[in-house]
Amino acid sequence: MVTYKKHDYPLPDIRRHLETGPVVLVSSAWCGKTDIMTMGWHMMMQFSPALFGCYIWEGNHSFEMIRHAKECVINVPTLELIEQVVGIGNSTGAELDKFAEFGLTPIAAEMVRAPLVKECYANFECRLSDDSLVDSRGLFIWEVVKAHVASSPKNPQTLHYRGNGEFMVAGASISRFDAFKPQNL
Amino acid sequence: MVTYKKHDYPLPDIRRHLETGPVVLVSSAWCGKTDIMTMGWHMMMQFSPALFGCYIWEGNHSFEMIRHAKECVINVPTLELIEQVVGIGNSTGAELDKFAEFGLTPIAAEMVRAPLVKECYANFECRLSDDSLVDSRGLFIWEVVKAHVASSPKNPQTLHYRGNGEFMVAGASISRFDAFKPQNL
Repeated sequence: MVTYKKHDYPLPDIRRHLETGPVVLVSSAWCGKTDIMTMGWHMMMQFSPALFGCYIWEGNHSFEMIRHAKECVINVPTLELIEQVVGIGNSTGAELDKFAEFGLTPIAAEMVRAPLVKECYANFECRLSDDSLVDSRGLFIWEVVKAHVASSPKNPQTLHYRGNGEFMVAGASISRFDAFKPQNL
Repeated sequence: MVTYKKHDYPLPDIRRHLETGPVVLVSSAWCGKTDIMTMGWHMMMQFSPALFGCYIWEGNHSFEMIRHAKECVINVPTLELIEQVVGIGNSTGAELDKFAEFGLTPIAAEMVRAPLVKECYANFECRLSDDSLVDSRGLFIWEVVKAHVASSPKNPQTLHYRGNGEFMVAGASISRFDAFKPQNL
């Protein structure tokens, strides 16, 4: 299993690892239990404070845990974890301990009670900022309060779900830095 | 310039082209003028009716046009259009006609007044479904009412913004179809 060496990461810069649209693992803790779910419906919403929105289906076992805890960790897996990503998305925490079942390691977070998934490339500790559209739309708006990101590689092989069991793996990087106005970078 | 041959695409399947997190071009029309903006903060929110959420900064020239028109088109560009994507994101429609400036072709949509960007791989015609978080969060929730998608390639080279002028280009595809429960595909 891959082991990433992570460091604290500046919160206004987390878009680098989320705006590209990777599948993420959402870890949570409530009433002495933990859970992990696979999630692909999310977006950046603000740089500072760093806001991040996501849709969670109410039928998901994690939904009530996350809703009550008002905290979670957004973990970014890479290609090495594809079997875990798929396994987690095709099982329910109502029936098993996903950390144990999928050989993943829970690590204590600094700012929230939900655990980090150690094997992921990046971990973002989140506190619920706005639940006004949870009931009607399943939309949670999070403030990211602490970020842990691997020092290398700079461009990880994140997974991007296409539906129908198919993932796009992050490809080459290309820069157009010189064509940007500084305020638009 | 690339010319994609497009066909009508089933609305419950549009996640294939949006959930991966590509940079999109948002086209709009209001009071006889059109505009295009580059946008990367978006997410799927429902399969059917197909709902799609996005953040638009109120300082963007398109913001008031889109807000009043309550319609837009979400266009998915590919690598061939990277200079246009960057140029559109680094200029303002208050000062120029972006279709003309960047050599793009407006095509009449079927269900909305905003034009399609012909050169893009996919075009999603959208009507505003929920504006309750526009003022406080810049969040527009759209119903996609018509989809046009290129017949080939199956896996386009979409652009995924990392910030700092850098884009990730969509890479290889990998399937784990057999590991999914049918209801989770």
